[in-house]
Amino acid sequence: MPNKRVKAPFFVVNPKNFLVGEILLDLAQYANQLAEEYHLDILFTAPTAELAILSKECPNLLITSQHMDPIHPGDSMGRISAESLKNVGVQVVVLNHADHPLSVAEIAQTINRAKQVGLQTIVCADSVIEAQALALLNPDILLAEPTSLIGKNQISSRDYVLSTIEQIKEINSNVLVEQGAGIGSEKDVLELLNLGADGVGVTSGIVKAENPKEMMKKMIQVVASFRGERK
Amino acid sequence: MPNKRVKAPFFVVNPKNFLVGEILLDLAQYANQLAEEYHLDILFTAPTAELAILSKECPNLLITSQHMDPIHPGDSMGRISAESLKNVGVQVVVLNHADHPLSVAEIAQTINRAKQVGLQTIVCADSVIEAQALALLNPDILLAEPTSLIGKNQISSRDYVLSTIEQIKEINSNVLVEQGAGIGSEKDVLELLNLGADGVGVTSGIVKAENPKEMMKKMIQVVASFRGERK
Amino acid sequence: MPNKRVKAPFFVVNPKNFLVGEILLDLAQYANQLAEEYHLDILFTAPTAELAILSKECPNLLITSQHMDPIHPGDSMGRISAESLKNVGVQVVVLNHADHPLSVAEIAQTINRAKQVGLQTIVCADSVIEAQALALLNPDILLAEPTSLIGKNQISSRDYVLSTIEQIKEINSNVLVEQGAGIGSEKDVLELLNLGADGVGVTSGIVKAENPKEMMKKMIQVVASFRGERK
Amino acid sequence: MPNKRVKAPFFVVNPKNFLVGEILLDLAQYANQLAEEYHLDILFTAPTAELAILSKECPNLLITSQHMDPIHPGDSMGRISAESLKNVGVQVVVLNHADHPLSVAEIAQTINRAKQVGLQTIVCADSVIEAQALALLNPDILLAEPTSLIGKNQISSRDYVLSTIEQIKEINSNVLVEQGAGIGSEKDVLELLNLGADGVGVTSGIVKAENPKEMMKKMIQVVASFRGERK
Repeated sequence: MPNKRVKAPFFVVNPKNFLVGEILLDLAQYANQLAEEYHLDILFTAPTAELAILSKECPNLLITSQHMDPIHPGDSMGRISAESLKNVGVQVVVLNHADHPLSVAEIAQTINRAKQVGLQTIVCADSVIEAQALALLNPDILLAEPTSLIGKNQISSRDYVLSTIEQIKEINSNVLVEQGAGIGSEKDVLELLNLGADGVGVTSGIVKAENPKEMMKKMIQVVASFRGERK
Repeated sequence: MPNKRVKAPFFVVNPKNFLVGEILLDLAQYANQLAEEYHLDILFTAPTAELAILSKECPNLLITSQHMDPIHPGDSMGRISAESLKNVGVQVVVLNHADHPLSVAEIAQTINRAKQVGLQTIVCADSVIEAQALALLNPDILLAEPTSLIGKNQISSRDYVLSTIEQIKEINSNVLVEQGAGIGSEKDVLELLNLGADGVGVTSGIVKAENPKEMMKKMIQVVASFRGERK
Repeated sequence: MPNKRVKAPFFVVNPKNFLVGEILLDLAQYANQLAEEYHLDILFTAPTAELAILSKECPNLLITSQHMDPIHPGDSMGRISAESLKNVGVQVVVLNHADHPLSVAEIAQTINRAKQVGLQTIVCADSVIEAQALALLNPDILLAEPTSLIGKNQISSRDYVLSTIEQIKEINSNVLVEQGAGIGSEKDVLELLNLGADGVGVTSGIVKAENPKEMMKKMIQVVASFRGERK
Repeated sequence: MPNKRVKAPFFVVNPKNFLVGEILLDLAQYANQLAEEYHLDILFTAPTAELAILSKECPNLLITSQHMDPIHPGDSMGRISAESLKNVGVQVVVLNHADHPLSVAEIAQTINRAKQVGLQTIVCADSVIEAQALALLNPDILLAEPTSLIGKNQISSRDYVLSTIEQIKEINSNVLVEQGAGIGSEKDVLELLNLGADGVGVTSGIVKAENPKEMMKKMIQVVASFRGERK
């Protein structure tokens, strides 16, 4: 079963390790319902151990792993293989997050391993020059996110966003560009899409909202209506 | 639901990253059946993403994670939290495997985190002196396994086994001692139990056997009959 | 030439990476003069690249490396071998600092490598239980320093200091216990020696003092007079 | 004092951690003499602790560090700062060797730190695609060395060498391309220069030769005569 390529504009719900169990599943199920309702590509990340449950309960989401190791099946312990992720229904993996930095050699190998089993990749970059370097490795999506803004209530500057998108596409026009870091409301989501982001990823903006499900819905509605206008 | 403490003699099936999907599940289901039949504590490790499936299908096994990070729920990506493991039914975690070495500070923190949510811990050590040092940190089980023998078809020397067990118990008599590395047959299992091991863990001896399920059964029968004699 | 064993009470000047070049050398030369004047064991750490210069200019100091890798001479790049340190006159190495955590296996191997070439070892520990575990590996000196206090202007609590010293000596009475973290003045130095510390190590208290050389002198004088009283 | 930019064709003697002390110094002093005699840019790497001695004794060599950390002077232990290297006379640093892999973020930061103090950088890459990605980060020299060939007695394939050089220069024509791995004799050196390498780096070919100094001389003579022909 070939993996359908993520389509812009897409939305990434990234609860990191903030949520587990019932609360995580409840949020995912609501995202699953919204994905169906709005016919949007919604990626939803989760702790590795929870991926199997989410993928079973939420068929409309693109279930996304928060990490993967550049290994083949075999004599390793506690490393996350492409095969094990594929087996539980994962469709996308995040690589090189600030919390799990990889060497260039490891990123190249892990992208290859993902392609071999039919997983798509999101590779994180911290600066424009890094984003360009990583674009050459042909990930599906580049997440351009200044580490200094992660968890802050402030989106990347207009200049950063514009130059990142332009300079990544210049190097590799096939790569989709995701913007994240510091998105606090649906207005931030719209602003980033208007600046040219192919997709937007949110953590704190949702998990720390007064009403996470309501906030997630508003953000997803903005993405859906942005797509409508663009058509 | 409090976690029942692992009871000696126990058996650990540790397929590492050799198996995923149907083959892994099939082996686990057979182990589950044997655990019921022989009333034995059988620990079964699996890649993190597969733990939820195995724990649901195999209620008689002590599902065991191959790694855990010393984190609290929160702003981390791709790290494995105690809470996420507990949530999917894991009962035991392996720490400090040669493939995932941790600092002493991390081992101490991770053992604490495991205890807070009710997970038991297996901590790996490479030499007698390391095993003694780690015994002071109060894990439930110490796996004394010379790295140089991992994956080899040769068990630890009689001297290594005897001195390890004796010297660990001298430091901390509450710790159960598991022996692993290089166990090729049910005879090796019996020899290690006779030397005083509280439990035995097997990888290659099972996954590389001509008939893995048959070999696993023979090994488990040896553990069961050893327990019978000892009673 | 055998390395003389460090004698209590000793003093460690640990400028970490705060100082390089002339300023570092100037401080070291003054410490060298004080070591001669007071006949004290003064350990002085420095960035790896500066060790050769300091050891040549300061024969009365025990020049101390801030790290060492568990390698043998051979095919490695940028790793710090015991042989290269010994060759430039280093006499002591610090291992497992919070900034350079090592696995237990690595600590055990590195202590062995150090002994093979005649280097003494200081192993850092973060809590009492870790200090006990590491005492079993037989370092020459244990530095018991709660990571949370590093760089803070507050010494470890009286209870922490007393229980650490007692519990380390109980496990291994041969190990000298160094106390560090948050020492701001000569009074803190005296208090720690009175509580039973074999030696005291200082970073911020010296490099951030208005007059680093003057502060270092006062601290060293306290150590010297403490020794005098104890005789 | 500005650092003179390395000029092609250059030669890198890279004894890694194979040599220390007198033997290392003796080899370096001979290289120093050859650098003067042939007016060649000869880079000579050494264990960090030995750099100060070599740089003092060998003014005609470009003394090269085998690693550097992306740190500023301050509160770190055992990390190698740009300032400490500059202070002892180092002129070039090797980054991202297979033995010391760095994340892209770290490579970008370390290149910046090196430029701030006037150090040149050699960044290692394992494959053509990685070499291209890293060329975007603007190092002075790219070392294109398939990890699988390190220490082997076989140079990279003609195709690998040609495509690497061409594809790196296409991305960033300012970057000098060094070829290494598996160079056993002066013939290999000549072949790589003829294929377009700007420089050649040798470890095993020299340190494991029957007569290391003689072999080093032959290789350097080949570089010198290659330059002569090209003029």
